[in-house]
Amino acid sequence: VVDLRSDTVTKPTIEMREAMANAVVGDDRYHEDPTVAELEAYYAELVGKEAALFVPSGTMANQVAMRTWTSPGDVVLAGARQHVLQYERMGSAINSGVQIVPVRDDRGTLSVRELEEQRDIFQFLGLPVKVVCVENTHMPAGGVPIGLEVLKEIRSLFPEAKIHMDGARLFNASVATGIEPSEYAQHVDSVMSCVSKGLGAPVGSLLGGSKEFIENAWKERAILGGQMRQAGVLAAAGLVALQSMRDRLAEDHRRARKLAKAIAARYGLEVLDPDSVQTNIVVFSHPDPEAFLTHLSQADVLGGSVAPGYVRLVTHKDVDDEMIDRTIVAISKAP
Amino acid sequence: VVDLRSDTVTKPTIEMREAMANAVVGDDRYHEDPTVAELEAYYAELVGKEAALFVPSGTMANQVAMRTWTSPGDVVLAGARQHVLQYERMGSAINSGVQIVPVRDDRGTLSVRELEEQRDIFQFLGLPVKVVCVENTHMPAGGVPIGLEVLKEIRSLFPEAKIHMDGARLFNASVATGIEPSEYAQHVDSVMSCVSKGLGAPVGSLLGGSKEFIENAWKERAILGGQMRQAGVLAAAGLVALQSMRDRLAEDHRRARKLAKAIAARYGLEVLDPDSVQTNIVVFSHPDPEAFLTHLSQADVLGGSVAPGYVRLVTHKDVDDEMIDRTIVAISKAP
Amino acid sequence: VVDLRSDTVTKPTIEMREAMANAVVGDDRYHEDPTVAELEAYYAELVGKEAALFVPSGTMANQVAMRTWTSPGDVVLAGARQHVLQYERMGSAINSGVQIVPVRDDRGTLSVRELEEQRDIFQFLGLPVKVVCVENTHMPAGGVPIGLEVLKEIRSLFPEAKIHMDGARLFNASVATGIEPSEYAQHVDSVMSCVSKGLGAPVGSLLGGSKEFIENAWKERAILGGQMRQAGVLAAAGLVALQSMRDRLAEDHRRARKLAKAIAARYGLEVLDPDSVQTNIVVFSHPDPEAFLTHLSQADVLGGSVAPGYVRLVTHKDVDDEMIDRTIVAISKAP
Amino acid sequence: VVDLRSDTVTKPTIEMREAMANAVVGDDRYHEDPTVAELEAYYAELVGKEAALFVPSGTMANQVAMRTWTSPGDVVLAGARQHVLQYERMGSAINSGVQIVPVRDDRGTLSVRELEEQRDIFQFLGLPVKVVCVENTHMPAGGVPIGLEVLKEIRSLFPEAKIHMDGARLFNASVATGIEPSEYAQHVDSVMSCVSKGLGAPVGSLLGGSKEFIENAWKERAILGGQMRQAGVLAAAGLVALQSMRDRLAEDHRRARKLAKAIAARYGLEVLDPDSVQTNIVVFSHPDPEAFLTHLSQADVLGGSVAPGYVRLVTHKDVDDEMIDRTIVAISKAP
Ligand SMILES: [Ca+2]
Ligand SMILES: [Ca+2]
Ligand SMILES: [Ca+2]
Ligand SMILES: [Ca+2]
Ligand SMILES: [Ca+2]
Ligand SMILES: [Ca+2]
Repeated sequence: VVDLRSDTVTKPTIEMREAMANAVVGDDRYHEDPTVAELEAYYAELVGKEAALFVPSGTMANQVAMRTWTSPGDVVLAGARQHVLQYERMGSAINSGVQIVPVRDDRGTLSVRELEEQRDIFQFLGLPVKVVCVENTHMPAGGVPIGLEVLKEIRSLFPEAKIHMDGARLFNASVATGIEPSEYAQHVDSVMSCVSKGLGAPVGSLLGGSKEFIENAWKERAILGGQMRQAGVLAAAGLVALQSMRDRLAEDHRRARKLAKAIAARYGLEVLDPDSVQTNIVVFSHPDPEAFLTHLSQADVLGGSVAPGYVRLVTHKDVDDEMIDRTIVAISKAP
Repeated sequence: VVDLRSDTVTKPTIEMREAMANAVVGDDRYHEDPTVAELEAYYAELVGKEAALFVPSGTMANQVAMRTWTSPGDVVLAGARQHVLQYERMGSAINSGVQIVPVRDDRGTLSVRELEEQRDIFQFLGLPVKVVCVENTHMPAGGVPIGLEVLKEIRSLFPEAKIHMDGARLFNASVATGIEPSEYAQHVDSVMSCVSKGLGAPVGSLLGGSKEFIENAWKERAILGGQMRQAGVLAAAGLVALQSMRDRLAEDHRRARKLAKAIAARYGLEVLDPDSVQTNIVVFSHPDPEAFLTHLSQADVLGGSVAPGYVRLVTHKDVDDEMIDRTIVAISKAP
Repeated sequence: VVDLRSDTVTKPTIEMREAMANAVVGDDRYHEDPTVAELEAYYAELVGKEAALFVPSGTMANQVAMRTWTSPGDVVLAGARQHVLQYERMGSAINSGVQIVPVRDDRGTLSVRELEEQRDIFQFLGLPVKVVCVENTHMPAGGVPIGLEVLKEIRSLFPEAKIHMDGARLFNASVATGIEPSEYAQHVDSVMSCVSKGLGAPVGSLLGGSKEFIENAWKERAILGGQMRQAGVLAAAGLVALQSMRDRLAEDHRRARKLAKAIAARYGLEVLDPDSVQTNIVVFSHPDPEAFLTHLSQADVLGGSVAPGYVRLVTHKDVDDEMIDRTIVAISKAP
Repeated sequence: VVDLRSDTVTKPTIEMREAMANAVVGDDRYHEDPTVAELEAYYAELVGKEAALFVPSGTMANQVAMRTWTSPGDVVLAGARQHVLQYERMGSAINSGVQIVPVRDDRGTLSVRELEEQRDIFQFLGLPVKVVCVENTHMPAGGVPIGLEVLKEIRSLFPEAKIHMDGARLFNASVATGIEPSEYAQHVDSVMSCVSKGLGAPVGSLLGGSKEFIENAWKERAILGGQMRQAGVLAAAGLVALQSMRDRLAEDHRRARKLAKAIAARYGLEVLDPDSVQTNIVVFSHPDPEAFLTHLSQADVLGGSVAPGYVRLVTHKDVDDEMIDRTIVAISKAP
């Protein structure tokens, strides 16, 4: 089976499995797991932050950040299609009692004009924006890396608010653009990344920020139930992921581009411009996603849908060139 | 002073004061205040609902409705500029833990296309929309009554969701359009109206709906601290307001139109089309609202601002023709 | 009918009705209602606090205090039978997300030993107690005023926590003990009192504290929907209540003692020691409260029940000596 | 070092490490991880429930159960010293908005009389108890298994409420008493157990209940951020724990008894009756826990404190007889 549903399906490598089996562990509740500590330090350095926290999922990383930065009733700006608004079952409303005000992000980039407008409106109303969320890469827009200029502009628009980067796929962005993770992260107050997606680890995400932020996040993680004991077994795989799996993301990007070309060939450039595919996610509109996906599944290719009328295909380490070729054949005859 | 800041500033009439002084009261906690009961029944009949509840404010009416219809994490659609999102200090996030997803409502009418789009998105995400809020009249858009056709369309788009009408100024809408309050309300599941705005009562709002809804709302009102004891003293004024102050709203509308003409004369039709002013609220863009308002205040005229770059003037029973004329003179020389 | 169910049933006096009819009012949202301002200042002085806030109910006063002092997850200590825990439909959990840890208060006085024990436990757990609630008079224990010594002890046990006094019946306590309201209130950070109970006003409560506390409470009141417009009509009655109805509470206390004697005569001193009745509330255990209350109701006397197996009778201004005598006759033959 | 601080410090066995390295995994978000499915089915059968859910921690298992069973404002009864009240940073108040009403549990067993009393009080108040939590074994009382008779009594007292068993150490209880896990669990609606404590797995807990309960719990787990991807790597260790590590808990219990005897020998039977130690937790009062623990640490023995004035020592698989003997020597000379 060619599984293009998501890069979350990646399975641990042999190296990761060995690392898990041999991990030196301790009780992370007592800050005594050396492998967790190593992973957190490694990530903190990668993103240029003072400290980091290992958590069981990207959703928890976002939810912990939200709880750490906000009080109930705070205003949060985020892209309308970002994970934190659409794919966390409204956790921010439930766990933090905040109101996310969405701004347009159709092509992945937040509308800076809308951000400014909303900033002024809520300032005027006496409810100054508390957090701005950016997603890098932006998944539903097709894995789009955020522009550094946009990020700087957002930072300067919001000197007082906290900026949180949902960098679940930050390393895809970095590999695609050549911009260092820390170069992105220097413009935000908190950043999270997943090791369980393109990087191939089985479980886990990292949240980075200042020492004080991470100390507070530690408590919020406990409240949400995310404190794990000998988490070093997972962290060991995460370290392999962070240390040796980043560069190979370029392969996934190359393959996604190939898929995009096949889709453009089949449905036209107006449906999908292959040049717009910079990382590992291919999203395109289709009149009947279900028919398309059923057709693919008959060729043992699995894809997904990311919104009504949209198909999503995601490349990752467990999909090789031969699989992509088979997929392209299937696409060429798809309805 | 000509106070055009809001119709909330209306002071009780002599008739209301007498009604308060002579009100037959009881303890409403025990359902024993006959004047409250009379007011609730009177309003329920006006809006064609089975039952109603008297509460201390419009904000509480909206918050009680939200708590009654939702559970934490529910998705609520509302106009981006509606009271429930912009003027209740994010009470819905705090008190109910819901996520309000705003749709465009620049001219007061919700974008039906956007409502449908959001409905489909959240349905797709497994988070079907729970409540749709409409505001009638829509304040920040300039007191615009909702169109009956739009309302019907929304109803048919959301057969499962609850539709709540923030009808703080429902009677202004009704007087302006000739559409009965019950004709509006038959398309929604809950409706609230204020007696303390244009109708001139000192305090209070009413929330109408089915018997079951009101029984549940009764408990939510208690939780928010809105249960009042001998509330009949306020209800007595509310009855006068509902029974004898509705028709005169036409006066306020006529005067608002006069103001609108003066503004158009001063700044041009592209700033404000007087024909767009259907009720008692005049909103127009101005490069420097503060300068405009300061100028007016020197003529003892008070106005307000409803958003950055927007001036708002509101007519009501304590502003007469002479006051309007004075205001018009001031406007004619305004910066 | 002799209504001994609660002192909340008191109806406004003629003086109050006149005051309401003649009240000078303004829009309290703009801080422009002079009568509200006068009432708030009067109460603040009575309790020796910098500022005060008028709210629609005692429940709201407590809920606003809770929201103002706490963040979700905070630990609050309160008597097991206090209003804030038992009679506000768990508003504190819903509105503030706090955990109230109850301590024994069978006879009205909080167990200081238990307060200290809980303080140490939650300190040990890294969750230092944030608020301690005291109730004065303590209703379910039979209207018991808090001892000044106990209050001082609590203060010294909790130098860091906020102490909130639910003084719904603070003036009953003061009249019974001769201790000034401000003498009680100097040992607490916030205090609330109702004008709608023994003092006879139709609606409303006051919350007192520091200027900063009241500024924050103002916002929390708005979130809960408790901001009223021309609230001066209610405040006018509240002023009459505070200024002229406090001394007469002694009458209610005298009559409650008479009732207590009748109960002791009928059921024995072990059921109720009349000397324990210091204010206007008579609570006693009865094997079948319903039978007792049904018997009373046949003599047109209404009472209530405050817990399983307990009867409650409350005296107030609308119950005179003759009514008490009729009640005593009924009690003498009660089952 | 002899680490008696907690049985959470247990490190994975070689067998577990191999199982992790060789685990067949899939994406549990798509219900496709066979090892997770196997673990969940295995646990469900052990506790005689229809279904089960794997989560990252015992705290999350409790929090998910709470969110699944309750709505904000619900009343929950639990022992005053239970984990759900004292060791989850008030997660229940934050995540679920419930009010936990504690009942006495000094010796581990909930006071059935108090449970009944509280049931009647909240029934009377119109707030019927929604959930009753029991802890088995009860940690702060010294690892006390719950009596089956007590459990049946609680069940019959609360036919309508949900009963949740925090069985973090359910298998210790079972091994100590010979009562099957399913025999305990048949009297409760939901049950959770940890594989990361005495059973030695690195991470994880299981929550069991009806199919419908687990379907809802699945969503609540996602909201809290507890959904993990290739969680099979952890589940593999969990399976080893559940399948092969239960019987050896008897060793831990034997060693705890030995420790208890040493403590009784040193401080007297009134401080600790060794016969009361049935499982792996030894709790005793000490005038100066810090002095005691410092003394132990000088002999490379680590212990902890569970409440002010109480020492706790916990045995587990990484503490052998020789270590216990060394500890006993240290205890014999302890202050
Ligand atoms: Ca993976
Ligand atoms: Ca008014
Ligand atoms: Ca707060
Ligand atoms: Ca009253
Ligand atoms: Ca372990
Ligand atoms: Ca729920």
